[in-house]
Amino acid sequence: MQVIETVSGVRNLRGQIKNSVGFVPTMGYLHDGHLALVKRARAETDTVVVSIFVNPTQFDVGEDLVSYPRDLERDLEFLEREKTDIVFVPSNKEMYPSFSTWIDVEGITEKLEGLHRPGHFRGVATVVAKLFNIVQPGRAYFGQKDAQQVLVIKRMVSDLKMNLEIVVVPTVRESDGLAMSSRNVHLSHEERRAATVLFKALSLAEELWRGGEEDADEIRFQMTSLIAGISLASIGYISIANIGTLEEMKIITPPALVSLAVRIGKTRLIDNAILK
Amino acid sequence: MQVIETVSGVRNLRGQIKNSVGFVPTMGYLHDGHLALVKRARAETDTVVVSIFVNPTQFDVGEDLVSYPRDLERDLEFLEREKTDIVFVPSNKEMYPSFSTWIDVEGITEKLEGLHRPGHFRGVATVVAKLFNIVQPGRAYFGQKDAQQVLVIKRMVSDLKMNLEIVVVPTVRESDGLAMSSRNVHLSHEERRAATVLFKALSLAEELWRGGEEDADEIRFQMTSLIAGISLASIGYISIANIGTLEEMKIITPPALVSLAVRIGKTRLIDNAILK
Repeated sequence: MQVIETVSGVRNLRGQIKNSVGFVPTMGYLHDGHLALVKRARAETDTVVVSIFVNPTQFDVGEDLVSYPRDLERDLEFLEREKTDIVFVPSNKEMYPSFSTWIDVEGITEKLEGLHRPGHFRGVATVVAKLFNIVQPGRAYFGQKDAQQVLVIKRMVSDLKMNLEIVVVPTVRESDGLAMSSRNVHLSHEERRAATVLFKALSLAEELWRGGEEDADEIRFQMTSLIAGISLASIGYISIANIGTLEEMKIITPPALVSLAVRIGKTRLIDNAILK
Repeated sequence: MQVIETVSGVRNLRGQIKNSVGFVPTMGYLHDGHLALVKRARAETDTVVVSIFVNPTQFDVGEDLVSYPRDLERDLEFLEREKTDIVFVPSNKEMYPSFSTWIDVEGITEKLEGLHRPGHFRGVATVVAKLFNIVQPGRAYFGQKDAQQVLVIKRMVSDLKMNLEIVVVPTVRESDGLAMSSRNVHLSHEERRAATVLFKALSLAEELWRGGEEDADEIRFQMTSLIAGISLASIGYISIANIGTLEEMKIITPPALVSLAVRIGKTRLIDNAILK
Protein backbone atom coordinates (compact mmCIF):
# COMPACT_ATOMS: atom_id res chain seq x y z
CA MET A 1 0.00 0.00 0.00
CA GLN A 2 1.40 3.37 -1.01
CA VAL A 3 0.43 6.51 0.87
CA ILE A 4 0.73 9.58 -1.35
CA GLU A 5 0.37 13.22 -0.32
CA THR A 6 0.71 15.03 -3.64
CA VAL A 7 -1.34 15.33 -6.82
CA SER A 8 1.77 14.78 -8.93
CA GLY A 9 2.59 11.66 -6.91
CA VAL A 10 -0.82 10.12 -7.63
CA ARG A 11 -0.61 11.20 -11.26
CA ASN A 12 2.79 9.54 -11.71
CA LEU A 13 1.53 6.28 -10.22
CA ARG A 14 -1.71 6.49 -12.21
CA GLY A 15 0.22 6.85 -15.46
CA GLN A 16 1.76 3.44 -14.89
CA ILE A 17 -1.54 1.64 -14.19
CA LYS A 18 -2.98 -0.03 -17.27
CA ASN A 19 -5.67 -2.17 -15.63
CA SER A 20 -8.94 -1.06 -14.01
CA VAL A 21 -8.97 1.50 -11.20
CA GLY A 22 -11.62 1.65 -8.46
CA PHE A 23 -11.81 4.78 -6.32
CA VAL A 24 -13.32 5.43 -2.89
CA PRO A 25 -13.27 9.10 -1.84
CA THR A 26 -13.62 9.54 1.93
CA MET A 27 -13.21 12.14 4.66
CA GLY A 28 -11.48 9.55 6.83
CA TYR A 29 -12.34 8.29 10.31
CA LEU A 30 -13.32 5.14 8.52
CA HIS A 31 -16.08 2.82 9.65
CA ASP A 32 -17.67 -0.33 8.26
CA GLY A 33 -19.67 1.78 5.81
CA HIS A 34 -16.46 2.98 4.17
CA LEU A 35 -14.96 -0.48 4.30
CA ALA A 36 -17.97 -1.88 2.42
CA LEU A 37 -17.10 0.57 -0.36
CA VAL A 38 -13.45 -0.51 -0.33
CA LYS A 39 -14.38 -4.21 -0.33
CA ARG A 40 -16.67 -3.66 -3.29
CA ALA A 41 -13.92 -1.79 -5.18
CA ARG A 42 -11.46 -4.54 -4.26
CA ALA A 43 -13.83 -7.17 -5.67
CA GLU A 44 -14.58 -5.29 -8.89
CA THR A 45 -11.36 -3.54 -9.92
CA ASP A 46 -7.63 -4.32 -10.18
CA THR A 47 -6.22 -1.27 -8.45
CA VAL A 48 -8.01 0.29 -5.47
CA VAL A 49 -7.40 3.94 -4.63
CA VAL A 50 -8.84 5.53 -1.48
CA SER A 51 -8.61 9.24 -0.69
CA ILE A 52 -8.80 10.70 2.80
CA PHE A 53 -9.49 14.41 2.76
CA VAL A 54 -11.72 16.44 5.07
CA ASN A 55 -12.87 18.84 2.38
CA PRO A 56 -13.22 22.35 3.89
CA THR A 57 -15.33 23.72 1.01
CA GLN A 58 -18.29 21.46 1.80
CA PHE A 59 -18.60 22.77 5.36
CA ASP A 60 -20.51 25.98 5.94
CA VAL A 61 -19.29 28.60 8.40
CA GLY A 62 -20.23 27.40 11.88
CA GLU A 63 -20.40 23.76 10.81
CA ASP A 64 -18.28 21.02 12.33
CA LEU A 65 -15.15 21.25 10.13
CA VAL A 66 -12.82 21.71 13.10
CA SER A 67 -14.41 19.03 15.25
CA TYR A 68 -14.80 16.55 12.39
CA PRO A 69 -13.13 13.38 13.74
CA ARG A 70 -9.73 12.36 12.37
CA ASP A 71 -7.49 9.34 12.97
CA LEU A 72 -5.17 8.78 10.03
CA GLU A 73 -3.12 6.04 11.65
CA ARG A 74 -6.15 3.88 12.35
CA ASP A 75 -7.55 4.62 8.89
CA LEU A 76 -4.36 3.43 7.21
CA GLU A 77 -4.39 0.20 9.26
CA PHE A 78 -7.96 -0.46 8.13
CA LEU A 79 -7.10 0.23 4.49
CA GLU A 80 -3.99 -1.95 4.60
CA ARG A 81 -6.13 -4.80 5.91
CA GLU A 82 -8.55 -4.34 2.99
CA LYS A 83 -5.63 -4.58 0.52
CA THR A 84 -5.92 -1.00 -0.69
CA ASP A 85 -3.23 -0.20 -3.27
CA ILE A 86 -2.97 3.58 -3.04
CA VAL A 87 -4.12 6.01 -0.34
CA PHE A 88 -4.21 9.68 -1.30
CA VAL A 89 -3.96 11.99 1.73
CA PRO A 90 -3.55 15.53 0.39
CA SER A 91 -3.27 18.68 2.52
CA ASN A 92 -5.71 21.57 2.08
CA LYS A 93 -2.96 23.47 0.31
CA GLU A 94 -2.34 20.62 -2.12
CA MET A 95 -6.03 20.44 -3.01
CA TYR A 96 -6.83 24.17 -2.98
CA PRO A 97 -3.87 26.33 -3.98
CA SER A 98 -5.31 29.76 -4.97
CA PHE A 99 -8.60 28.26 -5.98
CA SER A 100 -11.43 29.96 -7.90
CA THR A 101 -13.35 27.32 -9.89
CA TRP A 102 -16.62 25.79 -8.72
CA ILE A 103 -19.01 23.18 -10.01
CA ASP A 104 -22.71 23.79 -9.40
CA VAL A 105 -25.38 21.19 -9.96
CA GLU A 106 -28.63 23.15 -10.10
CA GLY A 107 -32.06 22.04 -8.90
CA ILE A 108 -31.52 18.96 -6.75
CA THR A 109 -28.83 20.72 -4.68
CA GLU A 110 -31.32 23.36 -3.53
CA LYS A 111 -33.42 20.85 -1.59
CA LEU A 112 -33.02 18.84 1.66
CA GLU A 113 -29.36 18.93 2.71
CA GLY A 114 -28.66 21.74 0.23
CA LEU A 115 -31.38 23.88 1.78
CA HIS A 116 -30.00 23.34 5.27
CA ARG A 117 -26.31 23.48 4.29
CA PRO A 118 -25.86 26.28 1.69
CA GLY A 119 -22.81 25.68 -0.50
CA HIS A 120 -22.42 22.11 0.75
CA PHE A 121 -23.02 20.37 -2.57
CA ARG A 122 -21.02 22.92 -4.52
CA GLY A 123 -18.09 21.94 -2.29
CA VAL A 124 -18.85 18.25 -2.68
CA ALA A 125 -19.22 18.36 -6.49
CA THR A 126 -16.08 20.44 -6.88
CA VAL A 127 -13.82 18.31 -4.70
CA VAL A 128 -15.15 15.07 -6.18
CA ALA A 129 -14.51 16.36 -9.72
CA LYS A 130 -10.96 17.29 -8.70
CA LEU A 131 -10.38 13.88 -7.14
CA PHE A 132 -11.80 12.15 -10.23
CA ASN A 133 -9.45 14.17 -12.43
CA ILE A 134 -6.48 13.29 -10.25
CA VAL A 135 -7.23 9.58 -9.79
CA GLN A 136 -8.99 8.96 -13.15
CA PRO A 137 -10.89 5.89 -11.98
CA GLY A 138 -13.08 3.66 -14.12
CA ARG A 139 -15.43 3.25 -11.17
CA ALA A 140 -16.03 5.33 -8.06
CA TYR A 141 -17.88 4.05 -5.00
CA PHE A 142 -20.35 6.00 -2.84
CA GLY A 143 -22.64 5.03 0.02
CA GLN A 144 -26.44 5.15 -0.27
CA LYS A 145 -26.49 6.73 3.20
CA ASP A 146 -25.72 10.07 1.57
CA ALA A 147 -28.55 9.67 -0.94
CA GLN A 148 -28.65 13.25 -2.15
CA GLN A 149 -24.87 13.30 -2.56
CA VAL A 150 -25.16 10.22 -4.76
CA LEU A 151 -27.78 11.98 -6.90
CA VAL A 152 -25.64 15.10 -7.22
CA ILE A 153 -22.50 13.16 -8.17
CA LYS A 154 -24.38 11.04 -10.69
CA ARG A 155 -25.90 14.14 -12.27
CA MET A 156 -22.52 15.86 -12.45
CA VAL A 157 -20.89 12.82 -14.04
CA SER A 158 -23.68 12.55 -16.59
CA ASP A 159 -23.92 16.29 -17.35
CA LEU A 160 -20.17 16.84 -17.67
CA LYS A 161 -19.71 13.56 -19.58
CA MET A 162 -17.14 12.28 -17.13
CA ASN A 163 -15.87 8.92 -18.28
CA LEU A 164 -16.51 6.76 -15.23
CA GLU A 165 -19.18 4.70 -13.54
CA ILE A 166 -20.68 5.59 -10.15
CA VAL A 167 -21.35 2.52 -8.00
CA VAL A 168 -23.76 2.97 -5.09
CA VAL A 169 -23.33 0.67 -2.10
CA PRO A 170 -26.14 0.01 0.43
CA THR A 171 -26.00 1.72 3.82
CA VAL A 172 -24.17 -0.28 6.49
CA ARG A 173 -25.91 -0.23 9.88
CA GLU A 174 -25.13 -1.01 13.49
CA SER A 175 -27.05 -3.99 14.92
CA ASP A 176 -29.79 -1.65 16.20
CA GLY A 177 -30.22 -0.01 12.81
CA LEU A 178 -28.22 3.21 13.26
CA ALA A 179 -26.53 4.07 9.96
CA MET A 180 -22.73 4.06 10.21
CA SER A 181 -21.34 7.60 10.22
CA SER A 182 -18.09 9.18 11.30
CA ARG A 183 -20.17 11.68 13.26
CA ASN A 184 -21.64 8.91 15.48
CA VAL A 185 -18.47 9.18 17.57
CA HIS A 186 -19.76 12.50 18.92
CA LEU A 187 -22.81 10.84 20.50
CA SER A 188 -22.92 10.35 24.28
CA HIS A 189 -24.21 7.01 25.58
CA GLU A 190 -27.68 8.44 25.97
CA GLU A 191 -27.63 10.20 22.61
CA ARG A 192 -26.42 7.01 20.96
CA ARG A 193 -29.60 5.27 22.16
CA ALA A 194 -31.80 8.18 21.04
CA ALA A 195 -30.11 8.12 17.59
CA THR A 196 -31.85 4.88 16.68
CA VAL A 197 -34.99 6.97 16.16
CA LEU A 198 -33.90 7.80 12.60
CA PHE A 199 -33.93 4.16 11.56
CA LYS A 200 -37.11 3.54 13.52
CA ALA A 201 -38.85 6.39 11.70
CA LEU A 202 -37.67 5.05 8.32
CA SER A 203 -38.82 1.55 9.26
CA LEU A 204 -42.20 2.97 10.25
CA ALA A 205 -42.48 4.67 6.85
CA GLU A 206 -41.67 1.42 5.06
CA GLU A 207 -44.16 -0.49 7.19
CA LEU A 208 -46.94 2.03 6.49
CA TRP A 209 -46.14 2.01 2.76
CA ARG A 210 -46.15 -1.79 2.63
CA GLY A 211 -49.43 -1.70 4.55
CA GLY A 212 -51.02 0.31 1.74
CA GLU A 213 -50.59 3.92 2.93
CA GLU A 214 -50.03 6.14 -0.12
CA ASP A 215 -50.56 9.54 1.50
CA ALA A 216 -47.10 11.05 2.00
CA ASP A 217 -48.40 13.61 4.52
CA GLU A 218 -49.80 10.83 6.70
CA ILE A 219 -46.46 9.01 6.70
CA ARG A 220 -44.55 12.25 7.38
CA PHE A 221 -46.95 12.97 10.25
CA GLN A 222 -46.44 9.57 11.85
CA MET A 223 -42.65 9.81 11.47
CA THR A 224 -42.74 13.28 13.04
CA SER A 225 -44.83 12.01 15.97
CA LEU A 226 -42.42 9.14 16.57
CA ILE A 227 -39.38 11.43 16.65
CA ALA A 228 -41.19 14.08 18.71
CA GLY A 229 -41.41 11.45 21.46
CA ILE A 230 -37.62 11.47 21.84
CA SER A 231 -36.58 14.49 23.88
CA LEU A 232 -32.95 14.52 22.68
CA ALA A 233 -34.04 14.55 19.03
CA SER A 234 -34.89 17.63 17.00
CA ILE A 235 -36.06 17.29 13.41
CA GLY A 236 -34.23 19.07 10.59
CA TYR A 237 -36.47 17.75 7.83
CA ILE A 238 -38.54 14.70 6.94
CA SER A 239 -38.92 14.24 3.21
CA ILE A 240 -40.75 11.85 0.92
CA ALA A 241 -39.63 12.84 -2.56
CA ASN A 242 -39.24 11.79 -6.16
CA ILE A 243 -35.92 9.97 -6.27
CA GLY A 244 -34.80 11.75 -9.44
CA THR A 245 -35.89 15.34 -8.85
CA LEU A 246 -36.26 15.39 -5.04
CA GLU A 247 -39.65 17.08 -5.47
CA GLU A 248 -41.84 16.36 -2.44
CA MET A 249 -44.74 13.98 -3.09
CA LYS A 250 -48.33 14.19 -1.88
CA ILE A 251 -49.40 10.77 -3.12
CA ILE A 252 -46.52 8.35 -3.18
CA THR A 253 -45.52 6.94 -6.57
CA PRO A 254 -42.59 4.57 -6.19
CA PRO A 255 -39.66 4.66 -6.16
CA ALA A 256 -39.73 7.39 -3.51
CA LEU A 257 -36.85 8.55 -1.36
CA VAL A 258 -37.74 8.89 2.31
CA SER A 259 -35.00 10.90 3.96
CA LEU A 260 -34.55 12.77 7.16
CA ALA A 261 -32.11 14.89 9.12
CA VAL A 262 -32.34 14.85 12.90
CA ARG A 263 -30.19 16.60 15.43
CA ILE A 264 -29.39 14.37 18.41
CA GLY A 265 -27.99 16.72 21.01
CA LYS A 266 -25.44 18.70 18.99
CA THR A 267 -24.86 16.04 16.34
CA ARG A 268 -26.77 16.25 13.08
CA LEU A 269 -27.48 12.83 11.57
CA ILE A 270 -29.08 11.86 8.26
CA ASP A 271 -30.50 8.62 6.92
CA ASN A 272 -32.82 7.42 4.18
CA ALA A 273 -34.77 4.54 2.69
CA ILE A 274 -36.35 3.90 -0.68
CA LEU A 275 -40.03 2.99 -0.98
CA LYS A 276 -40.33 0.59 -3.91
CA MET B 1 -10.86 11.32 -41.31
CA GLN B 2 -13.83 10.15 -39.27
CA VAL B 3 -16.78 12.45 -38.64
CA ILE B 4 -18.60 11.49 -35.44
CA GLU B 5 -21.86 12.90 -34.13
CA THR B 6 -22.23 11.11 -30.79
CA VAL B 7 -20.43 11.17 -27.45
CA SER B 8 -20.43 7.37 -27.37
CA GLY B 9 -18.93 7.27 -30.86
CA VAL B 10 -16.01 9.49 -29.83
CA ARG B 11 -15.61 7.53 -26.61
CA ASN B 12 -15.42 4.21 -28.47
CA LEU B 13 -12.77 5.54 -30.83
CA ARG B 14 -10.87 7.21 -27.98
CA GLY B 15 -10.70 3.92 -26.09
CA GLN B 16 -8.72 2.41 -28.94
CA ILE B 17 -6.16 5.23 -29.16
CA LYS B 18 -3.00 4.54 -27.18
CA ASN B 19 -0.77 7.32 -28.52
CA SER B 20 -0.99 11.08 -27.89
CA VAL B 21 -4.18 12.99 -28.62
CA GLY B 22 -4.29 16.68 -29.57
CA PHE B 23 -7.64 18.46 -29.44
CA VAL B 24 -8.88 21.66 -31.08
CA PRO B 25 -12.36 22.75 -29.91
CA THR B 26 -14.03 25.15 -32.38
CA MET B 27 -17.39 26.67 -33.20
CA GLY B 28 -16.77 25.99 -36.89
CA TYR B 29 -16.73 28.39 -39.85
CA LEU B 30 -13.02 27.75 -39.80
CA HIS B 31 -10.40 30.28 -40.84
CA ASP B 32 -6.61 30.36 -40.85
CA GLY B 33 -6.61 31.04 -37.11
CA HIS B 34 -8.28 27.68 -36.47
CA LEU B 35 -6.07 25.97 -39.01
CA ALA B 36 -2.97 27.25 -37.18
CA LEU B 37 -4.29 25.40 -34.12
CA VAL B 38 -4.88 22.23 -36.13
CA LYS B 39 -1.43 22.42 -37.75
CA ARG B 40 0.18 22.82 -34.33
CA ALA B 41 -1.76 19.83 -32.99
CA ARG B 42 -0.81 17.83 -36.11
CA ALA B 43 2.87 18.64 -35.53
CA GLU B 44 2.83 17.82 -31.82
CA THR B 45 0.48 14.87 -31.36
CA ASP B 46 -0.29 11.53 -33.02
CA THR B 47 -4.07 11.77 -33.23
CA VAL B 48 -5.76 15.07 -33.95
CA VAL B 49 -9.37 15.58 -32.86
CA VAL B 50 -11.32 18.72 -33.82
CA SER B 51 -14.79 19.53 -32.51
CA ILE B 52 -17.26 21.79 -34.30
CA PHE B 53 -20.07 22.91 -32.00
CA VAL B 54 -21.73 26.31 -31.78
CA ASN B 55 -22.25 26.20 -28.05
CA PRO B 56 -25.58 27.83 -27.16
CA THR B 57 -24.76 28.25 -23.45
CA GLN B 58 -22.01 30.78 -24.10
CA PHE B 59 -24.33 33.15 -25.98
CA ASP B 60 -26.44 35.54 -23.94
CA VAL B 61 -30.07 36.24 -24.88
CA GLY B 62 -30.02 38.71 -27.78
CA GLU B 63 -26.52 37.72 -28.84
CA ASP B 64 -25.68 36.35 -32.26
CA LEU B 65 -26.29 32.62 -31.71
CA VAL B 66 -28.74 32.36 -34.58
CA SER B 67 -26.70 34.42 -37.02
CA TYR B 68 -23.38 32.81 -36.04
CA PRO B 69 -21.94 31.68 -39.41
CA ARG B 70 -21.94 27.97 -40.23
CA ASP B 71 -20.56 25.96 -43.17
CA LEU B 72 -19.90 22.36 -42.15
CA GLU B 73 -19.08 21.11 -45.63
CA ARG B 74 -16.34 23.67 -46.15
CA ASP B 75 -15.05 23.08 -42.59
CA LEU B 76 -14.72 19.34 -43.21
CA GLU B 77 -12.80 19.97 -46.46
CA PHE B 78 -10.37 22.23 -44.58
CA LEU B 79 -9.91 19.67 -41.81
CA GLU B 80 -9.38 16.79 -44.27
CA ARG B 81 -6.66 18.84 -45.95
CA GLU B 82 -4.95 19.34 -42.56
CA LYS B 83 -4.98 15.57 -41.98
CA THR B 84 -7.37 15.71 -39.05
CA ASP B 85 -8.14 12.22 -37.71
CA ILE B 86 -11.47 12.73 -35.96
CA VAL B 87 -14.06 15.50 -36.24
CA PHE B 88 -16.70 15.62 -33.52
CA VAL B 89 -19.88 17.40 -34.66
CA PRO B 90 -22.49 16.88 -31.92
CA SER B 91 -26.02 18.29 -31.95
CA ASN B 92 -27.27 20.52 -29.12
CA LYS B 93 -29.29 17.58 -27.84
CA GLU B 94 -26.24 15.33 -27.78
CA MET B 95 -24.26 17.88 -25.77
CA TYR B 96 -27.05 19.13 -23.49
CA PRO B 97 -29.65 16.47 -22.72
CA SER B 98 -31.55 17.67 -19.58
CA PHE B 99 -28.60 19.63 -18.34
CA SER B 100 -28.11 21.22 -14.90
CA THR B 101 -24.38 21.33 -14.08
CA TRP B 102 -22.24 24.44 -14.52
CA ILE B 103 -18.61 25.33 -14.02
CA ASP B 104 -17.85 28.81 -12.74
CA VAL B 105 -14.41 30.33 -12.68
CA GLU B 106 -14.67 33.24 -10.27
CA GLY B 107 -12.82 36.56 -10.44
CA ILE B 108 -11.30 36.79 -13.90
CA THR B 109 -14.63 35.94 -15.56
CA GLU B 110 -16.26 39.03 -14.05
CA LYS B 111 -14.08 41.43 -16.04
CA LEU B 112 -13.81 42.52 -19.71
CA GLU B 113 -15.77 40.06 -21.85
CA GLY B 114 -17.44 38.59 -18.78
CA LEU B 115 -18.71 42.01 -17.75
CA HIS B 116 -20.15 42.64 -21.19
CA ARG B 117 -21.40 39.11 -21.80
CA PRO B 118 -22.92 37.75 -18.53
CA GLY B 119 -22.80 33.96 -18.38
CA HIS B 120 -20.47 33.76 -21.39
CA PHE B 121 -17.51 32.21 -19.58
CA ARG B 122 -19.70 29.89 -17.53
CA GLY B 123 -20.91 28.51 -20.86
CA VAL B 124 -17.38 28.34 -22.24
CA ALA B 125 -15.87 26.64 -19.19
CA THR B 126 -18.72 24.15 -18.98
CA VAL B 127 -18.69 23.10 -22.63
CA VAL B 128 -14.90 22.91 -22.74
CA ALA B 129 -14.87 20.68 -19.64
CA LYS B 130 -17.46 18.44 -21.27
CA LEU B 131 -15.46 18.26 -24.50
CA PHE B 132 -12.27 17.52 -22.54
CA ASN B 133 -14.05 14.70 -20.71
CA ILE B 134 -15.35 13.27 -23.97
CA VAL B 135 -12.14 13.56 -26.02
CA GLN B 136 -9.63 13.12 -23.15
CA PRO B 137 -6.76 14.85 -24.94
CA GLY B 138 -3.19 15.17 -23.68
CA ARG B 139 -3.05 18.64 -25.20
CA ALA B 140 -5.72 21.13 -26.20
CA TYR B 141 -5.09 24.10 -28.47
CA PHE B 142 -6.54 27.61 -28.08
CA GLY B 143 -5.88 30.89 -29.87
CA GLN B 144 -4.36 33.89 -28.12
CA LYS B 145 -6.98 36.06 -29.86
CA ASP B 146 -9.43 35.06 -27.14
CA ALA B 147 -6.99 36.00 -24.39
CA GLN B 148 -9.48 35.98 -21.53
CA GLN B 149 -10.88 32.64 -22.66
CA VAL B 150 -7.36 31.22 -22.53
CA LEU B 151 -6.96 32.53 -18.97
CA VAL B 152 -10.30 31.06 -17.89
CA ILE B 153 -9.57 27.65 -19.43
CA LYS B 154 -6.08 27.52 -17.94
CA ARG B 155 -7.45 28.44 -14.51
CA MET B 156 -10.17 25.80 -14.75
CA VAL B 157 -7.69 23.12 -15.82
CA SER B 158 -5.36 24.03 -12.97
CA ASP B 159 -8.09 24.40 -10.31
CA LEU B 160 -9.94 21.20 -11.22
CA LYS B 161 -6.66 19.30 -11.72
CA MET B 162 -7.58 18.26 -15.23
CA ASN B 163 -4.85 16.08 -16.65
CA LEU B 164 -3.98 17.91 -19.87
CA GLU B 165 -1.83 20.71 -21.20
CA ILE B 166 -3.27 23.90 -22.69
CA VAL B 167 -1.27 25.13 -25.70
CA VAL B 168 -1.78 28.77 -26.71
CA VAL B 169 -1.18 29.65 -30.35
CA PRO B 170 -0.47 33.24 -31.53
CA THR B 171 -3.23 35.21 -33.21
CA VAL B 172 -3.33 34.82 -36.99
CA ARG B 173 -3.98 38.10 -38.83
CA GLU B 174 -5.02 39.28 -42.27
CA SER B 175 -2.33 41.17 -44.18
CA ASP B 176 -3.65 44.50 -42.84
CA GLY B 177 -3.54 43.28 -39.24
CA LEU B 178 -7.20 42.35 -38.63
CA ALA B 179 -7.34 39.31 -36.36
CA MET B 180 -8.95 36.30 -38.02
CA SER B 181 -12.47 35.70 -36.68
CA SER B 182 -15.51 33.84 -37.89
CA ARG B 183 -17.48 37.01 -37.23
CA ASN B 184 -15.45 39.00 -39.81
CA VAL B 185 -17.75 37.54 -42.47
CA HIS B 186 -20.50 39.84 -41.21
CA LEU B 187 -18.49 42.97 -42.11
CA SER B 188 -19.49 45.01 -45.17
CA HIS B 189 -16.70 46.25 -47.41
CA GLU B 190 -16.62 49.59 -45.61
CA GLU B 191 -16.80 48.00 -42.15
CA ARG B 192 -14.02 45.61 -43.11
CA ARG B 193 -11.76 48.62 -43.69
CA ALA B 194 -12.84 50.29 -40.45
CA ALA B 195 -12.16 47.04 -38.54
CA THR B 196 -8.41 47.48 -38.91
CA VAL B 197 -8.68 50.11 -36.18
CA LEU B 198 -8.46 47.41 -33.48
CA PHE B 199 -5.02 46.31 -34.63
CA LYS B 200 -3.96 49.92 -35.21
CA ALA B 201 -4.93 50.81 -31.64
CA LEU B 202 -3.00 47.83 -30.27
CA SER B 203 0.02 48.73 -32.39
CA LEU B 204 -0.16 52.28 -31.06
CA ALA B 205 -0.18 50.95 -27.50
CA GLU B 206 2.88 48.81 -28.20
CA GLU B 207 4.66 51.71 -29.85
CA LEU B 208 3.96 54.03 -26.90
CA TRP B 209 5.08 51.37 -24.42
CA ARG B 210 8.29 50.71 -26.35
CA GLY B 211 8.81 54.48 -26.46
CA GLY B 212 8.86 54.58 -22.65
CA GLU B 213 5.23 55.43 -21.81
CA GLU B 214 4.31 53.67 -18.54
CA ASP B 215 1.08 55.50 -17.75
CA ALA B 216 -1.77 53.14 -18.64
CA ASP B 217 -4.33 55.98 -18.68
CA GLU B 218 -2.29 57.88 -21.26
CA ILE B 219 -2.13 54.83 -23.52
CA ARG B 220 -5.85 54.11 -23.05
CA PHE B 221 -6.58 57.76 -23.88
CA GLN B 222 -4.57 57.67 -27.10
CA MET B 223 -6.16 54.36 -28.15
CA THR B 224 -9.60 55.83 -27.45
CA SER B 225 -8.81 58.93 -29.50
CA LEU B 226 -7.64 56.83 -32.42
CA ILE B 227 -10.80 54.70 -32.44
CA ALA B 228 -13.06 57.72 -31.88
CA GLY B 229 -11.83 58.97 -35.26
CA ILE B 230 -13.53 56.04 -37.02
CA SER B 231 -17.24 56.76 -37.33
CA LEU B 232 -18.28 53.11 -37.82
CA ALA B 233 -16.47 52.04 -34.64
CA SER B 234 -17.90 52.13 -31.14
CA ILE B 235 -15.78 51.12 -28.18
CA GLY B 236 -16.93 48.35 -25.80
CA TYR B 237 -13.86 48.52 -23.58
CA ILE B 238 -10.16 49.29 -23.73
CA SER B 239 -8.20 47.52 -21.02
CA ILE B 240 -4.59 47.43 -19.88
CA ALA B 241 -4.53 44.80 -17.18
CA ASN B 242 -2.44 42.37 -15.17
CA ILE B 243 -2.22 39.29 -17.35
CA GLY B 244 -2.95 36.93 -14.45
CA THR B 245 -5.71 38.71 -12.55
CA LEU B 246 -7.07 41.07 -15.25
CA GLU B 247 -6.95 43.90 -12.71
CA GLU B 248 -6.62 47.23 -14.52
CA MET B 249 -3.21 48.91 -14.19
CA LYS B 250 -2.39 52.58 -13.58
CA ILE B 251 1.34 52.26 -14.06
CA ILE B 252 2.22 49.46 -16.43
CA THR B 253 4.29 46.60 -15.02
CA PRO B 254 4.94 44.01 -17.72
CA PRO B 255 3.67 41.62 -18.84
CA ALA B 256 0.40 43.51 -19.32
CA LEU B 257 -2.54 42.47 -21.44
CA VAL B 258 -3.88 45.23 -23.68
CA SER B 259 -7.28 44.16 -24.90
CA LEU B 260 -10.24 45.80 -26.48
CA ALA B 261 -13.74 45.16 -27.77
CA VAL B 262 -15.06 47.38 -30.54
CA ARG B 263 -18.35 47.23 -32.35
CA ILE B 264 -17.97 47.84 -36.08
CA GLY B 265 -21.48 48.45 -37.33
CA LYS B 266 -23.39 45.56 -35.74
CA THR B 267 -20.39 43.23 -35.41
CA ARG B 268 -18.55 43.09 -32.10
CA LEU B 269 -14.83 42.33 -32.51
CA ILE B 270 -12.12 41.72 -29.91
CA ASP B 271 -8.34 41.68 -30.10
CA ASN B 272 -5.34 41.94 -27.77
CA ALA B 273 -1.60 42.31 -27.45
CA ILE B 274 0.86 41.69 -24.64
CA LEU B 275 3.22 44.44 -23.46
CA LYS B 276 6.45 42.75 -22.43
